[in-house]
Amino acid sequence: MKNFNYNIPTKVLFGKGKAEKLGSEVNKYTSKVLLVYGMSSIKKSGLYDLIKKQLTDFNIKCFELAGVDPNPRIESVYEGAKICKENNIGLVLAAGGGSVIDCAKAIAVQAKYEGDVWQDLYVDSKLGELRDALPVASILTLAATGSEMNGNSVISKMETNEKLAIGHGKLRPVFSILDPTYTFTVNKFHTAAGVVDIMSHVFEQYFSPDKRGYLQSRLMEGILKTAVHFGPIALKDPKDYEARANLMWSSSLALNGMMSCGKESTDWATHAMEHELSAQYDITHGMGLGILTPYWMDYVLSEENAHRFVDYAKNVWGIEGDSEMSVARKAIDKTREFFTSLGIPKTLTEVGIDHEKFEIMAEKAVKNGPLGTMKALEKEDVLEIYTMAL
Amino acid sequence: MKNFNYNIPTKVLFGKGKAEKLGSEVNKYTSKVLLVYGMSSIKKSGLYDLIKKQLTDFNIKCFELAGVDPNPRIESVYEGAKICKENNIGLVLAAGGGSVIDCAKAIAVQAKYEGDVWQDLYVDSKLGELRDALPVASILTLAATGSEMNGNSVISKMETNEKLAIGHGKLRPVFSILDPTYTFTVNKFHTAAGVVDIMSHVFEQYFSPDKRGYLQSRLMEGILKTAVHFGPIALKDPKDYEARANLMWSSSLALNGMMSCGKESTDWATHAMEHELSAQYDITHGMGLGILTPYWMDYVLSEENAHRFVDYAKNVWGIEGDSEMSVARKAIDKTREFFTSLGIPKTLTEVGIDHEKFEIMAEKAVKNGPLGTMKALEKEDVLEIYTMAL
Repeated sequence: MKNFNYNIPTKVLFGKGKAEKLGSEVNKYTSKVLLVYGMSSIKKSGLYDLIKKQLTDFNIKCFELAGVDPNPRIESVYEGAKICKENNIGLVLAAGGGSVIDCAKAIAVQAKYEGDVWQDLYVDSKLGELRDALPVASILTLAATGSEMNGNSVISKMETNEKLAIGHGKLRPVFSILDPTYTFTVNKFHTAAGVVDIMSHVFEQYFSPDKRGYLQSRLMEGILKTAVHFGPIALKDPKDYEARANLMWSSSLALNGMMSCGKESTDWATHAMEHELSAQYDITHGMGLGILTPYWMDYVLSEENAHRFVDYAKNVWGIEGDSEMSVARKAIDKTREFFTSLGIPKTLTEVGIDHEKFEIMAEKAVKNGPLGTMKALEKEDVLEIYTMAL
Repeated sequence: MKNFNYNIPTKVLFGKGKAEKLGSEVNKYTSKVLLVYGMSSIKKSGLYDLIKKQLTDFNIKCFELAGVDPNPRIESVYEGAKICKENNIGLVLAAGGGSVIDCAKAIAVQAKYEGDVWQDLYVDSKLGELRDALPVASILTLAATGSEMNGNSVISKMETNEKLAIGHGKLRPVFSILDPTYTFTVNKFHTAAGVVDIMSHVFEQYFSPDKRGYLQSRLMEGILKTAVHFGPIALKDPKDYEARANLMWSSSLALNGMMSCGKESTDWATHAMEHELSAQYDITHGMGLGILTPYWMDYVLSEENAHRFVDYAKNVWGIEGDSEMSVARKAIDKTREFFTSLGIPKTLTEVGIDHEKFEIMAEKAVKNGPLGTMKALEKEDVLEIYTMAL
């Protein structure tokens, strides 16, 4: 097991009705918040009114940044940070899914930063410059990214087709409210994409060529089994509380940092490849992951790393067999079948993507070096995987 | 899934050499610590010298309380608290296993408490009175209790044969250093007792009569599989780093509070019954649990709750079969066989305990009401289980 530091101080208030605690939680930090949200869905669901009432009840002044996009733009970050600076905001409160939370985190940094966070942090990765940030909190409305409990933030700049990520402890929400009933209205497509996103986060940490990480692997298989079990239930009955709750808590645990604690290595190639897809075509992240993942699996599987696929096959899908490679391939087929059963497209062609930008996407994907550990992917490998996915 | 709040702020520094970070971590809190430890083992291993050097390097003054017993006594708590009060100590540093950490926590409370913590908190359970405590930190030398990451403290008063527990968020260590190499010298008996303790903590949260807690059950099965896999390896090769590391991290995750987050109910009857054994006979907690657990399983198994045993049988032991009750019984047999294979005695008779004090132990065990949820155990039930274990 590799040495690690575990430090996950985010407080999670989980369950139906927990948004009623919002005022008292915010009140511990400030009397002025910036509320960040996306489209009108939190108004339809009544969450917006509840938030406003909670803040009013505690005499907390609320500024707003609405209209954050699904792949949140750096322009929203600048706009939010401006409001924070001008009004001496004490906490950035995200109400939405991962995109809204990611945007709130970037705002929280830019609000305390002299330079340009996009260039310095997202592009140039000078994370040492990140010395301060406003506290961030979230009310989650989509089970997917795990942003509610981690320090990650992914921001896009559409004019340059860039989608870039940073991760820093100071960006972990100080508290997150996770009420599964707020995900009852998530449509089938985004529910499916969320399930894929959860599973992909686990895959990226689960699949590594080394033979270690026994405990971590067993815990991650637990999350995968949960996603496989409850994904179809949530699609069939969107108001199944148990399904929504299990998926929601899975999304947080999949990527709060705990699962990779002690792992010798992780992969993350599929995410890097998908970020280029989203950056060029603005597609839903979870869908992009769902299309690419089985092809990535096909491509990286080898005699040397088959043992991970075998564990995955046996412990998640109950597949048995003598030949490691054959068992591994069955697990990959199962994965593809499962994603398809959720309604995720099988190919890039189905979502209107052709090979036109593969060259530039592959170039950008490996600009900081080869991707992943299961097999180190050079530009040619990435091109091959994109092409397989056509 | 039941509503819950998750709040586990303990920072964990995990891995070989992490004790080298002690000085800088302590320095964030204070310049005066009370070092609490047990017997001479930390002196033999060199940990004591390392601690002293680390504290000296950061100009941190170190007071000491040595000789804490395996079932830590309230007298040690009073003694430690006196040192804290007289010397304006700013942090209580435990170096040892769960007993030492539990004692350090009680000291941290008593040092900031006007009344008698034993009577008010441990006996009368007036946890509302616990408003302040010194910060506690730990350097762990035994994988077992999970005390390094939770707010629990179990203290004994031998003159009245009482062993009582409290749990409070203020008692969570602010940081814990987990270096698996410090457990290389743990003997076979205590290694085995630690493995049983880890598994028992999971059992107490895993076994509940309701059908919910899917994600939690899958995660807990991951910890159980890890203990089953690495327990025998650690016994065979005490210096197997991977085994010691997996067991150590399992011990923390098994009882840091995360596993029961969202569970409808937990059990804890076996712990209550074992506490009476330890209080009367001062036996090792893990051994007492190892003897009682399979009999408790035999006794509580019913058609209604068999589904939990079936999950356990299938997912931890790979047992298949058609009849739920038969599969469940096979899992219980497997559990007993596994504990025996670790060198844990099968009966109370083997450790010199007869029926003499069963009556008083059973009486005390249920003094706050029936035990557990798999089957609510009254005094007669507890008596029956003690008798089965003879």
